[in-house]
Amino acid sequence: MANLLIIGAGGVGRVSAFKAAKNTDTFRNIVLASRTKSKCEKIAKDIKEKLGIDIKTYALDANKEENVIELIKKENIDIVCHVALPYQNIPIMQACIKTGAAYLDTALAETEDNPDTYYDLQWALDEEFKKAKTMALLGCGFDPGVTSIMVKYAADYLLDKIEAVDIYDCNFGDHGRHFATNFDPEINLRELNLPGKYWENGEWKTTQPFEIETKHSYPECGEATSILIWHEELESIVKHFPSLKRARFFMCFSDKYLYHFKALKNVGMFDIKPIKICENCEISPLQFLAKILPDPQELVTNYKGKTNIGVIVEGIKEGKKKKYYIYNICNHEKAIKETGAHCVSYTTGVPAIIGCKLMAKKIWWNEGVHNVEEFDAKPFFEEMEKQGLPIKVTEIKE
Amino acid sequence: MANLLIIGAGGVGRVSAFKAAKNTDTFRNIVLASRTKSKCEKIAKDIKEKLGIDIKTYALDANKEENVIELIKKENIDIVCHVALPYQNIPIMQACIKTGAAYLDTALAETEDNPDTYYDLQWALDEEFKKAKTMALLGCGFDPGVTSIMVKYAADYLLDKIEAVDIYDCNFGDHGRHFATNFDPEINLRELNLPGKYWENGEWKTTQPFEIETKHSYPECGEATSILIWHEELESIVKHFPSLKRARFFMCFSDKYLYHFKALKNVGMFDIKPIKICENCEISPLQFLAKILPDPQELVTNYKGKTNIGVIVEGIKEGKKKKYYIYNICNHEKAIKETGAHCVSYTTGVPAIIGCKLMAKKIWWNEGVHNVEEFDAKPFFEEMEKQGLPIKVTEIKE
Repeated sequence: MANLLIIGAGGVGRVSAFKAAKNTDTFRNIVLASRTKSKCEKIAKDIKEKLGIDIKTYALDANKEENVIELIKKENIDIVCHVALPYQNIPIMQACIKTGAAYLDTALAETEDNPDTYYDLQWALDEEFKKAKTMALLGCGFDPGVTSIMVKYAADYLLDKIEAVDIYDCNFGDHGRHFATNFDPEINLRELNLPGKYWENGEWKTTQPFEIETKHSYPECGEATSILIWHEELESIVKHFPSLKRARFFMCFSDKYLYHFKALKNVGMFDIKPIKICENCEISPLQFLAKILPDPQELVTNYKGKTNIGVIVEGIKEGKKKKYYIYNICNHEKAIKETGAHCVSYTTGVPAIIGCKLMAKKIWWNEGVHNVEEFDAKPFFEEMEKQGLPIKVTEIKE
Repeated sequence: MANLLIIGAGGVGRVSAFKAAKNTDTFRNIVLASRTKSKCEKIAKDIKEKLGIDIKTYALDANKEENVIELIKKENIDIVCHVALPYQNIPIMQACIKTGAAYLDTALAETEDNPDTYYDLQWALDEEFKKAKTMALLGCGFDPGVTSIMVKYAADYLLDKIEAVDIYDCNFGDHGRHFATNFDPEINLRELNLPGKYWENGEWKTTQPFEIETKHSYPECGEATSILIWHEELESIVKHFPSLKRARFFMCFSDKYLYHFKALKNVGMFDIKPIKICENCEISPLQFLAKILPDPQELVTNYKGKTNIGVIVEGIKEGKKKKYYIYNICNHEKAIKETGAHCVSYTTGVPAIIGCKLMAKKIWWNEGVHNVEEFDAKPFFEEMEKQGLPIKVTEIKE
């Protein structure tokens, strides 16, 4: 039994708290903390009403490690599930090092002035986690997270040697708004404005943003224009599977989304350089845009349709070329009914809690800083089935 | 000889100052004032270099009438040419009432919280101007301004009775930017987001913004999609020409402009309700957008093409239906070469200085508050020819 601290009370925090409350065989004391305590209280109230479980709530500024240390000590926390902003990864990791709590996140550390960051900052803390006799599990949402575990599953159970990975992420849902992001607008739009990047023949190749697009057919959902973007799990997959000759990430966008995205980009609304508004007060165009776009959590009203995220892994099995499509489909209305959050939050929060659960049970345990593909995929997939996100594996025969 | 105070150092202020400096037979002392003195100094320097004329410059917050009064008294000003923001019409008019200076503007008074304003606020000052034995000439740019004078010309010199007026305004120029406004972005975009409105059969009819569009053929320029919008001179034209059965205003927009305009509107970037950014600091989406769009003055680099603004006046002459197209064409490169400002500024600043000149010479003079169509069009058109904006009159035979 472990005491769990969830940091972040957006959509992912909501799903994580709900799922933790459904796993009280693993989690004894569930604490939810975020900058805005009222958001935690709303989630706690919903969980109490739906599941009859009590969770504790706190206001917490997680940018300061001393605040996190204080809360970890006060509540005797064993595992910190960090699903707030990626600006806070490092102070929260430092708090875990100083208290011996285990750490999990779902997105890699970023700084406000630079969205183009890599795992080095977090991997560099490996020795410190080892000394503290605890572990950090990085990138344990869906993508990054489950996508890498899918690759690991293919490498261990489907193929003798893996050669190529293409990740495809598509939200076929419709929230009816002109333009909105499904998670924090600032973090989401920073990511999409980076140059595209992919691995091919032993080197990284860079594209202009949105330079490469393809029509991809998503099983059970249909075809959608999908654009090659840089996505952080490519870095760790390429590191951990050195036999890979190619690794790419594609995300689909609706015409409506692309129309607004391109216009806003042209006008400069995605710039991250702050503009002075008043004496001692500045804000970047992207941060301002984030303030006026719909709250991703509010999209749950009338959100319909499904998400489809998966990987196509190519490789060799017994001397023959083989190709597998491993994917998950999530239904927005079902996710909202269960947790009050749509699939983009659901598919991130559920794997995060599974990661915490496997660490709590020491099924996934190795002191230091690790990515999810360093562990056995099978117990994770078994939990995915139980926790509402079943994985499908199909062979693609050509 | 009159002492002239020009308030505003944007593109229109620049053109006004240049044109005043070319009319030193009328203007003795030319003073240019704006919130930012450095902008005035840059214009003064350019005028000194090009024309060898000295103009004086001042920093002035024209939102406060006492500041304007002080400057009028200090420089012994006879005429105030107000080409700053329409938020400042009323304090500047009050300063004229209190000092006896004549007043001219090129856009009707607005308040920050309401873009949907009418002439009533300014017409209400008629008695006070009469008591002060001076006059205010409202809306003496191109549109409003020359467009109304064109109607007056048709009423006095071309037709016995005028029945319909359609105003067409098109900028065929290309500044090469994704999205920019040709004058103050905040004022421009507020205007375009109002419902459309036009006069038909004795009543005002309202449309959704951008509801009515038509293909119009602009003489010497070509066809362009033109959208019915509300424009302030319609109010005064309908008042002063009671025989009118119809009065409409159409403005053309490029596909590129509309692409960005619609996306920004959908996202809420035109909202004028302030959003809190920091403690004691707020800004509306529209004001924020205005901060990141190109400075209209900067568009002069590589601005090519022409503007075409005119009116089609229909009516009766000697018992027969007649129709005239009265218009002006302005060439961006020529305007920039002469004054450093493009046609959208040039076509506003030149008529403003002509209005000041006719008031200075008492050719247009009547104590109280007046619109341009209350005066004889001929001397104005003669000046237009001399000052670089010739008017063409053609009969449309069907």
